[in-house]
Amino acid sequence: MMMNVPLTIPMMLEHAERLFGKKEIVSRTDRGVKRLTYREMASRTRKLSSALKKLGVQRGDRVGTLAWNHFRHLEAYFAIPGMGAVLHTINIRLSPQQIAYIINHAEDRVLLLDPDLLPVLESIVEEIPKVRAFILMTDETTLPESKLPNLVLYEELIQQAEEEPFVKDLDENAPAGMCYTSATTGNPKGVVYTHRSVVLHAMALGLADTAAVSESDTAMPVVPMFHVNAWGLPFAATWFGSKQVFPGPKFTPQILLDLIEQEKVTISAGVPTIWLAVLQVLEKNPRDISSLRTLLCGGSAAPKSLIQTFEEKYGVPFVHAYGMTETSPLVFLSRLKSYQQDLPMEEKMSFRAKQGYLVPCLEMKVVGSDGKEVEPNGEEMGELLLRGPWIASEYYQDERTKDAFRDGWLYTGDVVTVDEEGFVSIVDRTKDLIKSGGEWISSVDLENALMAHPAVFEAAVVSVPHPKWQERPVACVVLKEGHQATKDELIEFLAKDFPKWWLPDHVLFLQEIPKTSVGKFLKRKLREYVKEALGES
Amino acid sequence: MMMNVPLTIPMMLEHAERLFGKKEIVSRTDRGVKRLTYREMASRTRKLSSALKKLGVQRGDRVGTLAWNHFRHLEAYFAIPGMGAVLHTINIRLSPQQIAYIINHAEDRVLLLDPDLLPVLESIVEEIPKVRAFILMTDETTLPESKLPNLVLYEELIQQAEEEPFVKDLDENAPAGMCYTSATTGNPKGVVYTHRSVVLHAMALGLADTAAVSESDTAMPVVPMFHVNAWGLPFAATWFGSKQVFPGPKFTPQILLDLIEQEKVTISAGVPTIWLAVLQVLEKNPRDISSLRTLLCGGSAAPKSLIQTFEEKYGVPFVHAYGMTETSPLVFLSRLKSYQQDLPMEEKMSFRAKQGYLVPCLEMKVVGSDGKEVEPNGEEMGELLLRGPWIASEYYQDERTKDAFRDGWLYTGDVVTVDEEGFVSIVDRTKDLIKSGGEWISSVDLENALMAHPAVFEAAVVSVPHPKWQERPVACVVLKEGHQATKDELIEFLAKDFPKWWLPDHVLFLQEIPKTSVGKFLKRKLREYVKEALGES
Repeated sequence: MMMNVPLTIPMMLEHAERLFGKKEIVSRTDRGVKRLTYREMASRTRKLSSALKKLGVQRGDRVGTLAWNHFRHLEAYFAIPGMGAVLHTINIRLSPQQIAYIINHAEDRVLLLDPDLLPVLESIVEEIPKVRAFILMTDETTLPESKLPNLVLYEELIQQAEEEPFVKDLDENAPAGMCYTSATTGNPKGVVYTHRSVVLHAMALGLADTAAVSESDTAMPVVPMFHVNAWGLPFAATWFGSKQVFPGPKFTPQILLDLIEQEKVTISAGVPTIWLAVLQVLEKNPRDISSLRTLLCGGSAAPKSLIQTFEEKYGVPFVHAYGMTETSPLVFLSRLKSYQQDLPMEEKMSFRAKQGYLVPCLEMKVVGSDGKEVEPNGEEMGELLLRGPWIASEYYQDERTKDAFRDGWLYTGDVVTVDEEGFVSIVDRTKDLIKSGGEWISSVDLENALMAHPAVFEAAVVSVPHPKWQERPVACVVLKEGHQATKDELIEFLAKDFPKWWLPDHVLFLQEIPKTSVGKFLKRKLREYVKEALGES
Repeated sequence: MMMNVPLTIPMMLEHAERLFGKKEIVSRTDRGVKRLTYREMASRTRKLSSALKKLGVQRGDRVGTLAWNHFRHLEAYFAIPGMGAVLHTINIRLSPQQIAYIINHAEDRVLLLDPDLLPVLESIVEEIPKVRAFILMTDETTLPESKLPNLVLYEELIQQAEEEPFVKDLDENAPAGMCYTSATTGNPKGVVYTHRSVVLHAMALGLADTAAVSESDTAMPVVPMFHVNAWGLPFAATWFGSKQVFPGPKFTPQILLDLIEQEKVTISAGVPTIWLAVLQVLEKNPRDISSLRTLLCGGSAAPKSLIQTFEEKYGVPFVHAYGMTETSPLVFLSRLKSYQQDLPMEEKMSFRAKQGYLVPCLEMKVVGSDGKEVEPNGEEMGELLLRGPWIASEYYQDERTKDAFRDGWLYTGDVVTVDEEGFVSIVDRTKDLIKSGGEWISSVDLENALMAHPAVFEAAVVSVPHPKWQERPVACVVLKEGHQATKDELIEFLAKDFPKWWLPDHVLFLQEIPKTSVGKFLKRKLREYVKEALGES
């Protein structure tokens, strides 16, 4: 029959090395900008593999990274799975306690870290006694003073290492990566990716109808590499030989715009917050961003106005996507079908502002509260269930597995509608829906509408308990600098699009909306704040 | 970890049905032109599955097709694997004897056939007693007179069938398809495709840097659907929701041009002979073929002039590809890398005229006669070895497996060079097959047949270049002392055993055949001699 050849991560890098060895990786680092070719990067990656082996890392062991987006992190992306170990990318924005929990839960053997993470790790060093070595990802040639034991320089390891080929007998279903996702209650939950899931997901990113990642691209992953593998973009971009640009530590919107302009970035990916911030800077100081052919935006819903401004004012196709840590993440991409291109602009935009339709290889179901699949009419709401070769089947050694994974499906906890064309729209999280007088109100719809107001920078809507209606919506709004708007103005603005009983009872003006480490609204915290603020008034 | 969800052929069709259900399939048939949607086609396909089950087809059974490119053949592409059986596409251009051999070797339970194949099957019906039923793929509503037992109408089966869901518990490594390829000696050899290999291969066709098959495409497979699954194009085009156009039985270059113009075909695939013929007609009667974004050309090497005429005169990108039955077939595609776009036109064309570079997921080696890998300098020759998830690991129940599959590699029998950029160029074949119009002609089979003639002492058959068919066979014959035979007599002698297009264009009578030291025909020398001899005449 057919050869039993596994889909593995080193196979991707070897392809790039042989066919695109001359192509370039451009990376901001902690001290400057580094340029290297895939040929050089592949050689260094094999050296990192063999250095890790010398440090005692064995097949199946977890190796953690606490790092920004840069070329050394890319090398770790391939070196760790390439030796049969598991790349555990740790969210550097978590609290030191959560970081310690994660390191211990994953049993990381070795940690690779950026210099600015030193204080965090020093603060928890006693709590993570099983970590055997710490590798500092820096351009510096001398080690800083530190109380971390066995702290070594990344570049010194590379210099001293022999170059050995990657492991040859990898099983495609063996673990290759790992990422923890925040939970509403309790500690973060771990998701383990396999070689197969990473490769198939990268392949999906190369499809003409999804992200179409190509050799001719210059790809800049802005979404952190500790956040679901930067949505798989570094894997796909490497495999297909794209030039890659990494914004490095503590980047700003200005730095991103510099890189786009100077390196002629064609595709980038990030959360709405990033693109909103980039837009603000862009509006003040016009830049040449015409090289961009696609901005991927996911993580949370992008306001229509954001999509429109990028497309109409700057001519940059802005593509809405949906996914989660449990889904590798790519699930939906919002691109019009060919026969939708002739629709009126407004109708097109209403499709585009949805989360999009399913990418190949995945299956979905939308299940109403009665347990039956809802009609695909864009109206009926239900919980989104997913299935596919890059969807998790469990949380790593975690009892909460049984809540989310049932009967072969992932229960996403997202309430959605699906229309006749298969476009899915996130209505809310099951836990963030507002139930007023027995009817659902979507906080997300109200938020998007508010953010379309010219004076509004960000808006979040949460529920407060109500004696008569059980729950009522309250809006929390951050205004743009130098802009003004009153409660009545905003409510009137919403009244055009929503029934009266959907309109928030209160509008609170804030300096900022509390967010999770990955930039999502922290609704739990916001609800507490709102309760307090309204109680006092 | 990740869900254990298999990659299967019904998953592809279900994706198309849900998301692209409105999209259209346009097909010439034996009587007219048929249009139907993917939604209709999927429903009919499920009915065909259940009808086959009623005819006694079980999981794992082979079901043969003897058919041109049309929508019913497409339905069979999904219905047969969708019920867990094996789609065995039979080359309708083989001799009745070869067809009988293949049907028996594969143990086909049921055969689906086009009306024009009736005489062929009637001529071998006694030799294929294990076939339980024959299904006639026709628009006709009454059965023709025929001595085939259990002959039924395709459309009647569909009308009477219940619609049942596809099999759910398919193993991705289970057999899904089968195709026989001609051999230098002996009978054709069978290659078995799996669900996994078909899906991964289709996915590769959707990559932005390969064929980029997309929802926005109108795809017309011209390469026969009995020829390595029409290079996988019908699978990919269905999965990704392209509009599909099938040229039907006995199409002509005019018909192809009509379809391109009327249906606005964007991508098509075929052998050089087809595109040469299309070009000839096009040159006489200009047509609007501007909808084409890619012509894929493979099967044998396309002359540079063909590439240039399509691109320079008609503005149609013409992409050279390489593959074989054993490789599903996509292995190389000849597209320039981004940094090659600035090369002088002539240099670009010299890359483009090569077979191209490796598509993702595959591995290659080029091994010289010393068993070592050759330098990638575009000069050193070696045999091409391939490995990957859509490369065969064996011939179906065939002793010749051991010749071609060794140490985990497929030995292609093609002698190639590979350059610094990874572009591979076919230099020669280790064996001396003749490729006429994209189909193999076995020189050895013809030689053996000739040498069975009472007047023939020895005979060697070699190829000569041909403007339309690329290569045509020429026979060199040494007569026995005191015997006589004319060209016409010998050709007539061969005509009993071989299809018409196998018959040598010329018969040259020689005193002796040049031989190697071990007594093998020195074909290289013979080809030179023939070229000269024919040139002089």
